[in-house]
Amino acid sequence: MDKRHQMIRKWMEENNADVLFLQTRPNVFYTTGFDTDPHERLVGSCLFRQNDPLVVCPGMEINQVNEVFHKGSAAGYSDTDNPWELLKKEWTSRVENIRTIAVERDISWERLKELQRAFPEASFIEANPVLEQGRLLKTEEEVALLKEAAALADFGVETGIANLREGITEMEVLAAIEYELKKKGVREMAFSTMVLFGEKAGDPHGNPGTRKLKKGDAVLFDLGVIWKGYASDITRTVFFNHVTDENQAIYETVLAAQKEALSLCRPGTPIGKLDRTARGVISARGYGEYFPHRLGHGLGIEVHEFPSMHANNDDPLQEGMAFTIEPGVYIPNQAGVRIEDDVYITSSGHVTFTSFPKELQIVKA
Amino acid sequence: MDKRHQMIRKWMEENNADVLFLQTRPNVFYTTGFDTDPHERLVGSCLFRQNDPLVVCPGMEINQVNEVFHKGSAAGYSDTDNPWELLKKEWTSRVENIRTIAVERDISWERLKELQRAFPEASFIEANPVLEQGRLLKTEEEVALLKEAAALADFGVETGIANLREGITEMEVLAAIEYELKKKGVREMAFSTMVLFGEKAGDPHGNPGTRKLKKGDAVLFDLGVIWKGYASDITRTVFFNHVTDENQAIYETVLAAQKEALSLCRPGTPIGKLDRTARGVISARGYGEYFPHRLGHGLGIEVHEFPSMHANNDDPLQEGMAFTIEPGVYIPNQAGVRIEDDVYITSSGHVTFTSFPKELQIVKA
Repeated sequence: MDKRHQMIRKWMEENNADVLFLQTRPNVFYTTGFDTDPHERLVGSCLFRQNDPLVVCPGMEINQVNEVFHKGSAAGYSDTDNPWELLKKEWTSRVENIRTIAVERDISWERLKELQRAFPEASFIEANPVLEQGRLLKTEEEVALLKEAAALADFGVETGIANLREGITEMEVLAAIEYELKKKGVREMAFSTMVLFGEKAGDPHGNPGTRKLKKGDAVLFDLGVIWKGYASDITRTVFFNHVTDENQAIYETVLAAQKEALSLCRPGTPIGKLDRTARGVISARGYGEYFPHRLGHGLGIEVHEFPSMHANNDDPLQEGMAFTIEPGVYIPNQAGVRIEDDVYITSSGHVTFTSFPKELQIVKA
Repeated sequence: MDKRHQMIRKWMEENNADVLFLQTRPNVFYTTGFDTDPHERLVGSCLFRQNDPLVVCPGMEINQVNEVFHKGSAAGYSDTDNPWELLKKEWTSRVENIRTIAVERDISWERLKELQRAFPEASFIEANPVLEQGRLLKTEEEVALLKEAAALADFGVETGIANLREGITEMEVLAAIEYELKKKGVREMAFSTMVLFGEKAGDPHGNPGTRKLKKGDAVLFDLGVIWKGYASDITRTVFFNHVTDENQAIYETVLAAQKEALSLCRPGTPIGKLDRTARGVISARGYGEYFPHRLGHGLGIEVHEFPSMHANNDDPLQEGMAFTIEPGVYIPNQAGVRIEDDVYITSSGHVTFTSFPKELQIVKA
């Protein structure tokens, strides 16, 4: 039994959970090594206090489950079977009297009702605490994969910059970035890649389109990959052929805020202090109202996970946490700058997984 | 008030629902025109019996909501606000006594509990029937977008075939396909693109990797795009430089099964009959055990939606339904063939949105 299962089993004992049932993609992957997007079909990771783990999945996925999942058994159902009947049969053959079932907070109402129908005597508790705690602090193996994912994100920014030329569109640059990443074996981006030019970068959630690049534009890249199950997320902003004085001032403000927040990254710092510090730098230079989002988010199997790096989160940073630091300033219809790194807390400070240069860059082309 | 809201309001009256609350991406898009991946943040579409619709969203998305949503108002919250408090305030300012709230079946347990805390007196009913019924039958505008999405899928297959050459890897072909699609403005694939060579195609859910193309390989493409909110999904299988007799027999079996199922596509045919017919063709030729999945799935805002095209669904086909027909035969460690089209039921028969040729093709390169 591996450490993850040990930790979960201990939690199950403390909480009297007979079965722990996971059915979100990240938690199934975390507990089984099996990563799939099952669409509406059920893929469930089932853990028991006494028995070996079980995966319930579509029959046609069994071979793939068995390739990576060696800690227990897998049971498959066809498109015309009822997976909940299979699940009930498998569970009751293992546990005599199922009284408490731990499920994810974000299990759907529909699936919860299926479980309630199958086990009308059972009560349900939230499995999240043990998973959040387990996933919060990254192991050495996870750090290695996060680093690889971050290196690919660096490469994505490098590719984007190499493709800038007058008249190219945002979508053309985006296509070039993803093409080169896919050739390196990336199957999945961590989220929709963002390439925004000029005033388009002034919207923190803008969408790439047919806007053509011209002299003096800010160019904002926000991208990341999923690599062997782990995410990266980088943002860099450069300027094309020229930077205005105001855009330079914005850039230097955001960079100063980001560096200031990074300088506090060590075990014990209250998380909210990072956001408040970066926000303070930006406000002091008169751009406070243009930084409308939290400083960052946890990073791991999911591109957004715990911890949440917002101003009101005063949990302390701990060795093993991984997250983004990404202050931004967005002047509507004019320009936007965001600078984002993937950060990891070590025993005495931090390292950044992303390492693309951050000094103001004017791309000549 | 548009037709969708009219239909939903009528349903709310019949079911005494005071508020109808939607928070999945497809249903938010369906009722507001606003399409976003909010990650863990709440984006909610709220419909009332007497009042105009309301969108609750992160403050930084308000501008984008207002660009497309003109039927009601939008209320934003920041990363440090509690969106459920905002929602309670907005709802109670509109409806005096909220007794029945309709929510999606797949709302999370967590969100349902938030609503129960905010409205402890309310009871909850499933909003799905009215949305499923509304989304099941496509309007003219939706058909136009589904056709555009399908044409892009055709183009994706064409691009993939044009890139085949001895020694190229699955991922390299995949990268070329997505590159060309993105240059045409496609922001999002409908699902992870599949390019599988030879024995890799023998797994119905295989993953593209570094397998190199060689003479005699089957090449299976399964891909689709999201285009202006609507999905496409095509599968074609071709052979590289040579086809073995057995692979040719498999191909002809799958093609015959697909054509036979298509020939039944008209209003009134029981859906399950399509699956049973295609399966019958495949079984008669000795490959029944190698067709492990349902015949297809509904297609629209989601790449998998209603109707489900499985053997036990005996709902009749209706004018306006859109779905895939995709029989396959997969011989483990040898080869696989799947042929898939996007089909639309007309008043007297059907049309296919995808139109890439299906006759057996041996790609010479």
